[in-house]
Amino acid sequence: MARTASLSGFPEWLPQERLVELHVLDTLRKTFELHGFSSIETRAVETVGQLLRKGEIDKEVYGLSRLQEDEDTPRDESGKSDKADPNALALHFDLTVPFARYVVENAGYLAFPFRRYQIQKVWRGERPQEGRAREFTQADIDVVGDGELPFRYDVEIALVIAEALSALPIPDFRLRINNRKLAEGFYRGIGLTDTAGVLRSIDKLEKIGEAKVAELLRNELGATDEQAALALKLASIRTEDTSFVAQVRALGVSDELLEEGLSELEQVIEAAVQRAPGKVVADLSIARGLDYYTGTVVETVLVGHEQLGSICSGGRYDALASKGNRKFPGVGLSIGVTRLVSRILSQEFATASRSVPTAVLVALNNDDSWSAAQDVAAQLRGRGIATEVAAKAEKFGKQIKFADRRGIPFVWFTDDDGKHQVKDIRTGEQVDADPASWEPSPDDLHVRITTR
Amino acid sequence: MARTASLSGFPEWLPQERLVELHVLDTLRKTFELHGFSSIETRAVETVGQLLRKGEIDKEVYGLSRLQEDEDTPRDESGKSDKADPNALALHFDLTVPFARYVVENAGYLAFPFRRYQIQKVWRGERPQEGRAREFTQADIDVVGDGELPFRYDVEIALVIAEALSALPIPDFRLRINNRKLAEGFYRGIGLTDTAGVLRSIDKLEKIGEAKVAELLRNELGATDEQAALALKLASIRTEDTSFVAQVRALGVSDELLEEGLSELEQVIEAAVQRAPGKVVADLSIARGLDYYTGTVVETVLVGHEQLGSICSGGRYDALASKGNRKFPGVGLSIGVTRLVSRILSQEFATASRSVPTAVLVALNNDDSWSAAQDVAAQLRGRGIATEVAAKAEKFGKQIKFADRRGIPFVWFTDDDGKHQVKDIRTGEQVDADPASWEPSPDDLHVRITTR
Repeated sequence: MARTASLSGFPEWLPQERLVELHVLDTLRKTFELHGFSSIETRAVETVGQLLRKGEIDKEVYGLSRLQEDEDTPRDESGKSDKADPNALALHFDLTVPFARYVVENAGYLAFPFRRYQIQKVWRGERPQEGRAREFTQADIDVVGDGELPFRYDVEIALVIAEALSALPIPDFRLRINNRKLAEGFYRGIGLTDTAGVLRSIDKLEKIGEAKVAELLRNELGATDEQAALALKLASIRTEDTSFVAQVRALGVSDELLEEGLSELEQVIEAAVQRAPGKVVADLSIARGLDYYTGTVVETVLVGHEQLGSICSGGRYDALASKGNRKFPGVGLSIGVTRLVSRILSQEFATASRSVPTAVLVALNNDDSWSAAQDVAAQLRGRGIATEVAAKAEKFGKQIKFADRRGIPFVWFTDDDGKHQVKDIRTGEQVDADPASWEPSPDDLHVRITTR
Repeated sequence: MARTASLSGFPEWLPQERLVELHVLDTLRKTFELHGFSSIETRAVETVGQLLRKGEIDKEVYGLSRLQEDEDTPRDESGKSDKADPNALALHFDLTVPFARYVVENAGYLAFPFRRYQIQKVWRGERPQEGRAREFTQADIDVVGDGELPFRYDVEIALVIAEALSALPIPDFRLRINNRKLAEGFYRGIGLTDTAGVLRSIDKLEKIGEAKVAELLRNELGATDEQAALALKLASIRTEDTSFVAQVRALGVSDELLEEGLSELEQVIEAAVQRAPGKVVADLSIARGLDYYTGTVVETVLVGHEQLGSICSGGRYDALASKGNRKFPGVGLSIGVTRLVSRILSQEFATASRSVPTAVLVALNNDDSWSAAQDVAAQLRGRGIATEVAAKAEKFGKQIKFADRRGIPFVWFTDDDGKHQVKDIRTGEQVDADPASWEPSPDDLHVRITTR
């Protein structure tokens, strides 16, 4: 199973691995739908102008161009990738920016607050490394309001994600939650006015450590030793309950935005302690690099697999989508499905009980019995039993071996007198059976995903 | 619903339209799995060299390039699209070529004959027109053998597709089936040796008509009047049973390959007449443009919607995939999901019973009741009932209106004494209910897709 992708950064799964991925995707879909999220998909392609609206990320974008352009294609339709041309086409690098565009374009057809889930591939031209692919699947949920969006959705989104992740065959996880208002208010309160700059530096904490972040704050943002120390002190606060509020207050900073952020984060943590105990921590070091977040920000780690990076991230964005004066504030989280599935597979957290959907192979008695065998198969399929028919009337031993090699548990025999028998090829037990009523055990009916 | 895509050729669905598409995708998946096909996905990206291996189609391919390449990225890793560079990256334009590559790469891990389904987006840079998008979803099934693949799979694939299409909310359809051996043997038998050239001309029959095809055959392929007439005569044969065999024989041409093709097509039509009556015709005009087909070829029309083009195409390919001397012959068909869904939506062949998965909105009595409301919602979800909780304790009338606007059929109320009631907001009926046992009618439990 330790295969290497034939194109670096573009992983592909074997059929039995894909079954694990399908289980993850089906589980997420079921949880999201139970919570009333509607499915949508957006095109894989956005204009470069749309993608680069928030800056900073152009390095990762794959531009498109037709290998052989028609000469009669007008320039603006050609889709030629040219960074300078905002109408050029490129592959989306996340699902939030396309979703914001979709909401603005379809606002007249949507009922707000609009709840949607979206499970699609995204592409980033980054250097591939462990846990970071160039093509990967994300599973997002978001709620977007028209004009305003109650803060309660920030709480709800975190709880839905905690429930969804709990249903997956993965180790324990922690949602690490912070609030940009809290952080920005605090920086402002200690006299650091380039709050976005401070956030960008704090975002590097895990990569470069406290000393280097302090240096950045002093050298690039003009912070005093005391200001840098306070910013780092704030980022060091981590609590599993709402005691972070007292710890922040003990730092003696006062600011209106800080208070708002403290209150918001308190609400999230308070609800999580009650409804998702042990799954959520207030972690005041969380910044999120992308600059469209305006309140709640979330990253998620697998306990014991922290070096994998965040497996679920997102937050509140009040200004990403707008149409004239009309604003569409939103909050959402994005699960890194490919990153999770890679880890599930490499650590064998879950495996498929067999590698094919097929439960029964109908053997051929002789070459003329194919149509009769198809009748048996149709009867079994009619009752939801996945069934294949052998293609050739080889010796029964060979047909059984064929089933065994493909991981099919049962082989069906019909003799010349029309008498039916079914053999469990794992035990060798062979019994009389009626195609109109025989059923495998529930454990054998479908592929099961068994967890370690 | 008559919205225009904001980017020509890249359709996007509204949530209630997406529910119809999901129904189509779920139905196909279920049918394919019942027949023992395993799911796989391949990366969206192939090398240009891989895509252009069979020539002819480079005009349609979208190349990729990173908008801002790292200076330290070696040339062969950069993914810059350059037609001359076979290592450059491009988006796949179908699922057959990537599947063939996947089979060759993973042959050591697969059990043959390998049956897989694959449902993914593909991209073609063609000029968008009705029924032809630049980004669209295909649903493919294929069986690939190691060394050899019994002809019976050609029959089986056609029957599985007929069953899958019959389960969709679409009008009646016809699989139009031909066989390349039959056609090529016939051309050879009448002395036309550039059989691929003749096929390419015949493929244009529906577009340019008999007279112009005859002209092509004479001018470009050196056919005599008689040869051209015979080729056209062959292409005019259409039968719903195996009587095409006698009609071909009546043309008095004898060739070994022709006989093989006649026998193969006869087997397919014979089985289809019995197992999928009325769904299949032998149509000797079908050629398929792409040149990797070597036997059975299939196109499919929706009866009464022939101008939409083929909604399901494919065939037998004996030489697409190989690894040294090892050959992997295959047969497969590809359903044009986006083309079908576009037509289902525009003609309202199917509609969703509501636009959200949610069956119940739990109303808030007051702002402090949110957590109690979440408890009710969790109980309902625990029994598979999709439930949302109101975000604000507005007047009940407003909360009911909110549910109504979103298409949610039931609103749940809990009074201060903990007494529960549920209201069907379509009828106004309100009854006492227990969150541990109440259920909506089966019709209201999930979104239903109703067909016209």
